[in-house]
Order: sequence, then structure tokens, then C-alpha cells
Amino acid sequence: MATNLEAFCMNSSPIKIVGIGGSLRPQSYSQQLLSLTGDRLQALGATVQILDLRQLNLPFCNGDKEYSDYPDVEKLRQTVQQADGLVLSTPEYHGGASGVLKNALDLMSFDQLSGKVTGLISVLGGSANSNALNELRVVMRWVHAWVIPEQVAVGQAWRAFTPDGKLLDKDLSERLDRFATSLIDNTRKLRA
Amino acid sequence: MATNLEAFCMNSSPIKIVGIGGSLRPQSYSQQLLSLTGDRLQALGATVQILDLRQLNLPFCNGDKEYSDYPDVEKLRQTVQQADGLVLSTPEYHGGASGVLKNALDLMSFDQLSGKVTGLISVLGGSANSNALNELRVVMRWVHAWVIPEQVAVGQAWRAFTPDGKLLDKDLSERLDRFATSLIDNTRKLRA
Amino acid sequence: MATNLEAFCMNSSPIKIVGIGGSLRPQSYSQQLLSLTGDRLQALGATVQILDLRQLNLPFCNGDKEYSDYPDVEKLRQTVQQADGLVLSTPEYHGGASGVLKNALDLMSFDQLSGKVTGLISVLGGSANSNALNELRVVMRWVHAWVIPEQVAVGQAWRAFTPDGKLLDKDLSERLDRFATSLIDNTRKLRA
Amino acid sequence: MATNLEAFCMNSSPIKIVGIGGSLRPQSYSQQLLSLTGDRLQALGATVQILDLRQLNLPFCNGDKEYSDYPDVEKLRQTVQQADGLVLSTPEYHGGASGVLKNALDLMSFDQLSGKVTGLISVLGGSANSNALNELRVVMRWVHAWVIPEQVAVGQAWRAFTPDGKLLDKDLSERLDRFATSLIDNTRKLRA
Repeated sequence: MATNLEAFCMNSSPIKIVGIGGSLRPQSYSQQLLSLTGDRLQALGATVQILDLRQLNLPFCNGDKEYSDYPDVEKLRQTVQQADGLVLSTPEYHGGASGVLKNALDLMSFDQLSGKVTGLISVLGGSANSNALNELRVVMRWVHAWVIPEQVAVGQAWRAFTPDGKLLDKDLSERLDRFATSLIDNTRKLRA
Repeated sequence: MATNLEAFCMNSSPIKIVGIGGSLRPQSYSQQLLSLTGDRLQALGATVQILDLRQLNLPFCNGDKEYSDYPDVEKLRQTVQQADGLVLSTPEYHGGASGVLKNALDLMSFDQLSGKVTGLISVLGGSANSNALNELRVVMRWVHAWVIPEQVAVGQAWRAFTPDGKLLDKDLSERLDRFATSLIDNTRKLRA
Repeated sequence: MATNLEAFCMNSSPIKIVGIGGSLRPQSYSQQLLSLTGDRLQALGATVQILDLRQLNLPFCNGDKEYSDYPDVEKLRQTVQQADGLVLSTPEYHGGASGVLKNALDLMSFDQLSGKVTGLISVLGGSANSNALNELRVVMRWVHAWVIPEQVAVGQAWRAFTPDGKLLDKDLSERLDRFATSLIDNTRKLRA
Repeated sequence: MATNLEAFCMNSSPIKIVGIGGSLRPQSYSQQLLSLTGDRLQALGATVQILDLRQLNLPFCNGDKEYSDYPDVEKLRQTVQQADGLVLSTPEYHGGASGVLKNALDLMSFDQLSGKVTGLISVLGGSANSNALNELRVVMRWVHAWVIPEQVAVGQAWRAFTPDGKLLDKDLSERLDRFATSLIDNTRKLRA
């Protein structure tokens, strides 16, 4: 039973989730949705930290390991490394994840990303689509992360939110709840 | 503690894995590799059943729910439904999974596939590639299955095996071991 | 100038387009849309032949070159081989092209498919998506076909058509026109 | 005949190809391969301009149209806009195109990219793969560019080149020739 008791205790400690938003736009909808997601994850008992790439000073990845002129690279890496799970929220630009988000992932590697249980969100102006989600699913698999089956793609984002940043569509809001619940439950199971 | 004891007991029961091979070729390498994988899964304590599509009489999916003239549809569905985890092994035809395998998946739905922990294998004659693996990852996500990060793509399959059906390449063999171990461990965790 | 005159004459002969529908469902929407597309291609001067897989007796591909028990394999191959361009219309099953359509492609190879200028259509019951289109784009690339940038994905197909088989949505209808026009124009250019 | 004569004349003017490399690494193999490709395109009569992102000062895309602090954005856009065809050469980072390259594409839009005939190259340290190529194919389709069926993926790039930057493998070198020839021939046809 010892092993199992140990697992029980490990499983009782709070789940740490780090969210990364892939947009630098001031009123970004994908950041707004990430923020909402963070609230729900916290309501479910998780510890949540949002990395707002608008507030980090990151370089373009040049293949180097070290970026001593950019201490935020280390901040990004350490924050992600100590997480149990991740949420990646990206605007869909040209049928893919934003270069901004992909560049942040390029600055990390297996040390930070492998084994992380990840939920994916994409937001776009036109009809909802899963191009960016499929791309990120392949990328996160490549670094040996887990990607949960639940995912959220929001189309016509400009009319998805109330003025105070809530989701207008009830179905979408419930979808986000199932997404958050799955991320917490399965992160707990997989990190055991 | 009751819930946890219950989980402990559930987790102790053997993992049931069903393997489906996507090739109808008599000397199929993907079937051979699936068979090898089955052996390793059994050695790790799993109950394994291989569905050889060469021995099932399945129709082309026409969108119907019922195929009363083809009792093997029901056999396929029931076998998969009671599994904890799946292995899908496909030849890569034209940069995708075989139509044969996709058709077998088309004959099933959420009832059979949702929540299943799945490992993916592809085999091809040319250089190893992940086209078919990426496609199946998207498809299995769509039916809300889990796909483990470990995957196996074997290129130049015609020179991968010994005459008695073992893998020649030691690295590949170890990769298959890690694949089998991950499938068992994570099926156990996720079904809890 | 001779070469160019020759090209001019070649370019004046009618474009031959073959359409393949990926559904066996009796009232299939993807077949209906393929039929509509065929009408528009003909109105633009193309010779169009629709291969209705419901009326062909095709086997599951087993990797063989010859299927002497199934003369329709040869019919499929010859019809496609002499085409200048193709339209593939598939229902989206489980986030992918139908196994039925992929199997028909598996029964052919470079001889039939290489260099063909191809337009892609997908039809689904839920929200429009590009999963099946992306998959087919990769597959057709693999056999060295061209895929035109214009593509058509119809969501909620059960409410897309009038009782007599016309498209209800004007935007979608215009999109189909642009699709047909691009296929004809670019097939003419690329076969020159 | 007038139209055709006009087409003949248009087709006689040199093809303008712009190459964009997705790596900022000083000794980048993808830049090296792009440079080689440029040489071959020139030998076939094209006008070639390589945009070395290491020498452009580009911002991260924040969704804005204007980047007045970064004149190189305008330089990038104008150079690409006046091209007939493109070559995108990317290192494969984490199973995808580099964020650096995707960000450069994010800074452009239909005005620059639509209708461009594009050839794709990826370079990686491990086994050759088509993850990044498939991703870029979907992205370039989204902006209504053409992507030629020929593509080049170089694995184990660290042993692919001679000290003076030539390709060691004869098959790969011939593949690059076919790639360059197809890009020129089909750009000529499609821009007509």
C-alpha cells in the first residue's frame, strides 16, 4: 500500500498550471479567453500562473541554449518547468499558431515541456477551425507532452465576449468548463 | 481512503489492450510489428487481443449504424468497446493511414473509441515519416481518445525484420519497449 | 513560336475533370455537392465524369497491383488516368476523409494521380472544418498531384441544400463558383 | 491569338523568386540550403533574392498593420509582393516550422502572399520528416498561395554538406534540381 499512499498524497497537492498566450495584441481575445480559463482552473483548485508574452522580453530563437541578454528566457523556462500542466492559447494566424507562440516554445525544450499535460485553445476572427490546434498537437507531441482530447476553438471572436470579458455563448462556456475539468483531472492522473 | 482503495484495486486488474492492424497484405510488416508489440504488452502484464482485419469480413462504411449482414461489425465494436487501450498499426499508403484502417474506425464511434488510450504505429517502404501518425492522432482526438506521446514509425520495413519476425535494429526495438511500457502505464493511470 | 502555337492548341481542347465522391450513403450530401460542382465545371466548358463509388464494386486495397476479380479497379484507374483534373468530395468522418475514399486512392498510384490538378471538398454534419481537407492535401501531394488553394468545406450539411439539391447559402454558392473556375483555369495552365 | 501572344511575352520575362530562411543561427544549414537553391534557380534563368532574416530587424507580430518603427517590415512586404514565386526554407523546431519564419509570414498577408507559387524546404538534425513541410503547406494554402508538389526535407543536416557548402548526397542534390526546375516551370505556367 505504501506506493499507493504516496500516490494519494502526491495527488492531493494542488495542480500547478501555467498558461501561455500567443498574442501580443493589446485587446487580444486569446489572452482574454486564457484569463477566463485560468479563473476556472483556479475555481477547480489549481494554482494558475499566466505568462503574458506582452510583458516578457523574449528574443527570437536562434538555436542557442543560452540567452544571457534576455533574463526572461530563464523566467519562461523555470515557470514552465515547474508546472504540472499547460494551457496554450493562440490566435490563429494564416491557418497556424502565431509565430510569437511558436517562438516561445522554440526557446524551450524537453526539459521544460516533456510530460506536461497540455490543453489547447485557438481563437480566430473567421469561422472556427482546428488548423492551429492540430499544428500545436503535433508540436507538443514532438516534445513528448500530453495533449488532452478536449480543445477549444472560438470563431468570430469579436462577438464572443460581453463587454466585461465573459463568454456570451452558453455552449462555448460549458465547453470551456469541460476543458478545464479534464485538464485538472487528467493532469492529476498522469503526474501520479 | 475508500475511493483510493477502490482506485488501487481497479488499477491492479489487468489492462486490456486491443490491437488493430491496417493492412490486408498477406506478409504485412505492420501486422508483424503489431504482433511483436502484442507480445511485449503481454510480457508487461496486459491482456492483448489482436484484430486481424484480414480475418474479419467488414463492409465499407456507408454511414449506417447497423450492418446486419456483417456480424463482424458487431464483433469489432464489442471487442474495442471493452478494451482499456488500443494499438493502431498502419502501413503508410500515399502519406496517410490505409483506407482499410480508416474504414474500420469509421464503422465505430464515440461508444467504442472515446477515452481509449491509444498508441500509434506506422510502417512504410520508404523513409520513415509521421504523416500517417499525425493523421491518426487528429482522428483519434476527434473521437475523444487519448494518444500517447510515444509513437513508432518504421521506414524501409522490408529490411527491418529477421526471417523469424524479430526487429533487427536495437534502437527501434528499445523504442518499441518504451512505447509498450508507456501504453500500459498511462492506460492504468488514465482509466483510474 | 511553334511550341507556343502547340501549347495554344492543347490549351483549347476541353479540360477533362473526374469527380470522386467518398460517401456510400444513399442520400449523401457530399455526392450531391460533387454533382453540383460537376454541373458548374461543365458550364465552364469542361468534360466531366463522376465516379460514384456506390456504383463501383471495389475491393479493399491489399497492397497488390492487380485485382482481376474486380474489373472496376481497372475502370477507376483508367478513368482517373485520362483526366486532366480531379475533384475529391468526402464526408468528414471522425476528423478525416472517409476510409472509402482513401481506399479508392490506395487502389491507384503515381500512374493515375501524379500531376493531376485537384480540388478538394468536404461535407460534415457539425461545424465546417478543414481536417479532412488538410489530410487529403497531404495525401495528394504525396502522389505528386497539385491541389488548388481554393477548397470547399460545408458544415451542417443537412440544412445546406434546397429540396431539389441546390445550395441555400449564396456565399457558399459563390465560393463553389470560384472553386470551379480556379480548377478549370489552373488545370489549363498546368497541363500546358 | 493576341491573348496568347501576350501570354507568350509575359512568360518570356524572367521569373522573380524570393527566398526566405527561417533560421537565425549563424551557421544555419537551412540558410545554406536556401543559398544553394538560389544558385540553381538563377542557373535556370530566374532572378533570385534571398531575404536573410538574420539581417532584417523585424518585430514580433502584434496583429497591427503598421510597424513604423521597423522599416524592414515594409522591405519584407515589398520584396515578397513583387515576387512571382517563393522558397521557404525552415529548420524543423519541435516538429514544426520555426517561430521566426512563421512570425515573418504573420507580418504579411494576402496582398503579399496570395497566388505566389511556393516551394518548401525543411532541415533538421534528426531523421528527415515532413512535419514542418505539412504545416507550411496548410499555412500557405490559407493565404491562397500555391505550393508545388516537390519538396525537400533534409535530415541529419550536420553531415549533409561539404566544407564548402555543397550537398554530399547525389540523390538529394538531384532532388533539389527537380525542386528548382518545378518551381521555375510551374511559376511560369501559373502566373500566365
